[in-house]
Amino acid sequence: MYEVEIKVPADLERVRNRLDELGATSTDAVVQADTYYDAPHRSFPETDEALRIRSERPERGDEVTRLTYKGPLVDDESKTREEIETAVGDGETVDAILTKLGFDAAATVRKDRERFAFEGYTITLDSVDGVGEYVEVETEVEDESGLESAREGAYEVLERIGLEPSDQLRTSYLGLLLESRSDD
Amino acid sequence: MYEVEIKVPADLERVRNRLDELGATSTDAVVQADTYYDAPHRSFPETDEALRIRSERPERGDEVTRLTYKGPLVDDESKTREEIETAVGDGETVDAILTKLGFDAAATVRKDRERFAFEGYTITLDSVDGVGEYVEVETEVEDESGLESAREGAYEVLERIGLEPSDQLRTSYLGLLLESRSDD
Repeated sequence: MYEVEIKVPADLERVRNRLDELGATSTDAVVQADTYYDAPHRSFPETDEALRIRSERPERGDEVTRLTYKGPLVDDESKTREEIETAVGDGETVDAILTKLGFDAAATVRKDRERFAFEGYTITLDSVDGVGEYVEVETEVEDESGLESAREGAYEVLERIGLEPSDQLRTSYLGLLLESRSDD
Repeated sequence: MYEVEIKVPADLERVRNRLDELGATSTDAVVQADTYYDAPHRSFPETDEALRIRSERPERGDEVTRLTYKGPLVDDESKTREEIETAVGDGETVDAILTKLGFDAAATVRKDRERFAFEGYTITLDSVDGVGEYVEVETEVEDESGLESAREGAYEVLERIGLEPSDQLRTSYLGLLLESRSDD
């Protein structure tokens, strides 16, 4: 399974109106708080790994918290990473355990996230605290041969919602948050 | 809160019969599998810490898995440790995350555990794979002044169920398992 994901800065109010005109389906809206940890025995930026606690609060229903390990890129082409994730009972307790083990919270990325379904793509509208507003267009394809046409389809979707594929950003929200802090 | 806990080797069948005669209340029975981890950046035996995944299967109902950090003894007198624990969705996934982070499973202690309530004490009958049969008598007291009489009460309970307080063992099941292996 390969994932195509394109992220661009956007004015979410305009994108929301455009999605409404196009008849895209609103699927869900959540508030996510992602805390990323530094390891005591390795430099995750150097090893290209990440350890994250994500708390997700849906519009309706209970908050869900997950612990996630992300491994380095498996290969450059597909941008595929190993991702290991499990639900945990309580984020603060997992944070306390990680802290006792010598892992330090590096930063927390908070965002309001709305998802829409449109012509086989997931369109995600993210309002990221201290970072800005972004839209992600993504889809999955079975094998590598489908990547190119999926990417072109994503560009087309971006254009139809009034966004510019060439504005594409490859930096993670964590990276953008840390950059904005170092600018201060 | 202080905990008094006394553990002695025992013939569980005899203890079970004796508890029945005394009218002790059977509270629950579970199967526990505790996996303990070594850290990549510290020696837990030296720092007197522990990191554990416990999967507990009750007689009825679903298996529950918890991640637990145990800190070093707060002081020698009370045998009190900091313990931080949270439920996790899936033990195998947490094991995979810990392994990726460089924590290695050191050993797994499996036991059948039956609990009884008797005169303010919890009596636990443990049949530990590869280690043997043990009984633990424990209770909690509000403050240090109550420790001595709680300990004497625990000795009395042990004698009433046909066990010898002087057989008391201070080694953990993990320690006993690792000792039995080094004897091989």
